[in-house]
Amino acid sequence: MRDVAVIGVGMIPFGRRDEDSLMEMLAYASLKALDDAGLGDKSVDAVYVGNMGSGMLQHQSAIASSLVDRLSLLPAPADTVENGPASGGSAVKNGLLAVASGYYDTVLVVGGEKMREVTGWRATDFVATMTHPLAEYVYGITLPGMAGMFTRLYMEKYGVTREHLVAVSIKNQEMGGRNPYAHVEMAITKEGIFDDPAAVVNNPVIADPLHLYDACPVSDGAAALILFPLEKIKNPVKPPVVIAGFGQATDTHTLQEREDPTDLKAVTLAAQQALEMAKLKPSDIHVAELHDAFTILEIAESEHIGFFKKGEGGKAALAGKTAFGGTIPINLSGGLKARGHPVGATGVAQVVDIVFQLRHELPKDRQVKNAQNGLTVNFGGFGNNVLSFVLRRVQQ
Amino acid sequence: MRDVAVIGVGMIPFGRRDEDSLMEMLAYASLKALDDAGLGDKSVDAVYVGNMGSGMLQHQSAIASSLVDRLSLLPAPADTVENGPASGGSAVKNGLLAVASGYYDTVLVVGGEKMREVTGWRATDFVATMTHPLAEYVYGITLPGMAGMFTRLYMEKYGVTREHLVAVSIKNQEMGGRNPYAHVEMAITKEGIFDDPAAVVNNPVIADPLHLYDACPVSDGAAALILFPLEKIKNPVKPPVVIAGFGQATDTHTLQEREDPTDLKAVTLAAQQALEMAKLKPSDIHVAELHDAFTILEIAESEHIGFFKKGEGGKAALAGKTAFGGTIPINLSGGLKARGHPVGATGVAQVVDIVFQLRHELPKDRQVKNAQNGLTVNFGGFGNNVLSFVLRRVQQ
Repeated sequence: MRDVAVIGVGMIPFGRRDEDSLMEMLAYASLKALDDAGLGDKSVDAVYVGNMGSGMLQHQSAIASSLVDRLSLLPAPADTVENGPASGGSAVKNGLLAVASGYYDTVLVVGGEKMREVTGWRATDFVATMTHPLAEYVYGITLPGMAGMFTRLYMEKYGVTREHLVAVSIKNQEMGGRNPYAHVEMAITKEGIFDDPAAVVNNPVIADPLHLYDACPVSDGAAALILFPLEKIKNPVKPPVVIAGFGQATDTHTLQEREDPTDLKAVTLAAQQALEMAKLKPSDIHVAELHDAFTILEIAESEHIGFFKKGEGGKAALAGKTAFGGTIPINLSGGLKARGHPVGATGVAQVVDIVFQLRHELPKDRQVKNAQNGLTVNFGGFGNNVLSFVLRRVQQ
Repeated sequence: MRDVAVIGVGMIPFGRRDEDSLMEMLAYASLKALDDAGLGDKSVDAVYVGNMGSGMLQHQSAIASSLVDRLSLLPAPADTVENGPASGGSAVKNGLLAVASGYYDTVLVVGGEKMREVTGWRATDFVATMTHPLAEYVYGITLPGMAGMFTRLYMEKYGVTREHLVAVSIKNQEMGGRNPYAHVEMAITKEGIFDDPAAVVNNPVIADPLHLYDACPVSDGAAALILFPLEKIKNPVKPPVVIAGFGQATDTHTLQEREDPTDLKAVTLAAQQALEMAKLKPSDIHVAELHDAFTILEIAESEHIGFFKKGEGGKAALAGKTAFGGTIPINLSGGLKARGHPVGATGVAQVVDIVFQLRHELPKDRQVKNAQNGLTVNFGGFGNNVLSFVLRRVQQ
């Protein structure tokens, strides 16, 4: 298996993009990545699109080949990859293996979602299509509902407190304010949440014990990257970053079948596989983008990856260890919580944000100094399909 | 890139399967393929599901990871691949490249669709989600409509006649009667179609000049295969068949942008790539499964692949050259026309049918004697995304 590098990245601001179609968002992000890679008007060998809902939300299928036409990349072959909210990660994975196989050299991977096509209960219902149709969906369980129950169990077993959750929320919304691509740019404070009567109204319980500020927004957005074999890079435009490790695992579809519902086995396995392939330990990681669709998930994932022992993740967040300048900075992009979570885009955007970090090209208020290794976790279902990537800056 | 073999195949009868869920169909086909490969209760390294419409038709996403749980293959990673009616082919492609990369050894690829969930105009509308949303779909064009206009142009340019189309229809429905997995088993005759008043009523014009018997049915079904590196096969249960060649190409999304709408460029390119990779010529192919969603497509594809010169495909079909016992037998499974076309299943089913042929395990009334090389074409959109595979029996 040959080494595969990310030679170009592109992202568009996440948020409400009522004026843009899904196809336009995918095209904008792709063009930025092609430009960033210095490909000019050169074509690519293949295209992978990560998307969860074009059929359900836009009543459109086969969007990958449509994008190829839209970008004048004909006759490049193209496939759409779907894996619930891990669709972006699965698209990166298949682009990675395709280049690793030697069959393709230059591959465009783009993830995108136009989720604000639906709002309110319909957005929640769209995401709930990944629950078990007979054992979960029919009973009306939603993802916020699952996350609420998970949080309660996690609090009881590991002593996570509401202060821990709020620490994640404050950190990620502050970082969102520093990220031009982020959906949520509104900084919040602990005092504001606990003492300000307005914040109590604006931050209601959505699924006890989770409040509104514990959840990611419903966003539109797209992110793209260009993969290329490391051995063939001659004169890189930007410092090449290699995908040094990759892992993916599946857990039971229903939560009720898990012996310990607080044990996110697929996260542990995916991260372990990715780290082992990269020959790195959790302590070798300098920056991480985790799947904080709910604040509890950032805490739980940070423990399952091995950044902290079980029960220590919440305290670490409160102590600032996962903040900018901390020992293992997490979600300096703002994460799903603030960058936003257009589901098909997320797994690609996480890799793009790590590439920004490892190229050392971010502004000072977001750049981890001398970052060499980064890690992502993209979490589908309620942890029943999880992907993890380890990226490494190539020493030149 | 290492050679990848098909070491197990499985298919369930296509047709109306009102009693089975999509998940059950995928599981049945997968279990048959796992059993055929002699894997017993061993797991697999990864799973790929080809499916176009689980979101739109079953309101369900991330079905690949759900299938892994259903089959007790945890924690095997899994992705769904979508590419309109070429979703099955795209799933085979990504499984192929994943094994070729060396990252995985044993990969299950399964394609399936439960299309009869919707009937009448809703089934036609579902397939029309692959047309261009602004330039085609809004004007009410359907796939049968496109195929009708294509047929008219092809008739005018190349002299294809209704007798040629009927010859394909008769051949494929006869072969469907010999295939236990086929949806349509009803043999028809030329006299029946042209002279029998009942047949004229039963075979109305659906999109001039196409009649009902020129079109594939709306089917439920699933097909599966197991991929494995050729170099690691020790004691094969069945004669191994290698995927010797693979090609894929994209054409303009809208038909109106094609200089010559009768020129199916993506078919030509995909087949050329597959044949070149396998180091074979069209005349080296002993049996083919083509994408005859409409009879005209079998004729057009047989020319674009290079089995016949342009304008000769229809005459060849009428002369029996593409029939069982002919010089290049096409769609001995009955094709989409008679086996049926559960969209996500088709690209996988085509490869499965070629494997049956190259293993020499079919009954005498369908087995091409001593077949060594086979080819498939899986056609998405109206030829805007096309995949082709060349398979070869491994000499032992």
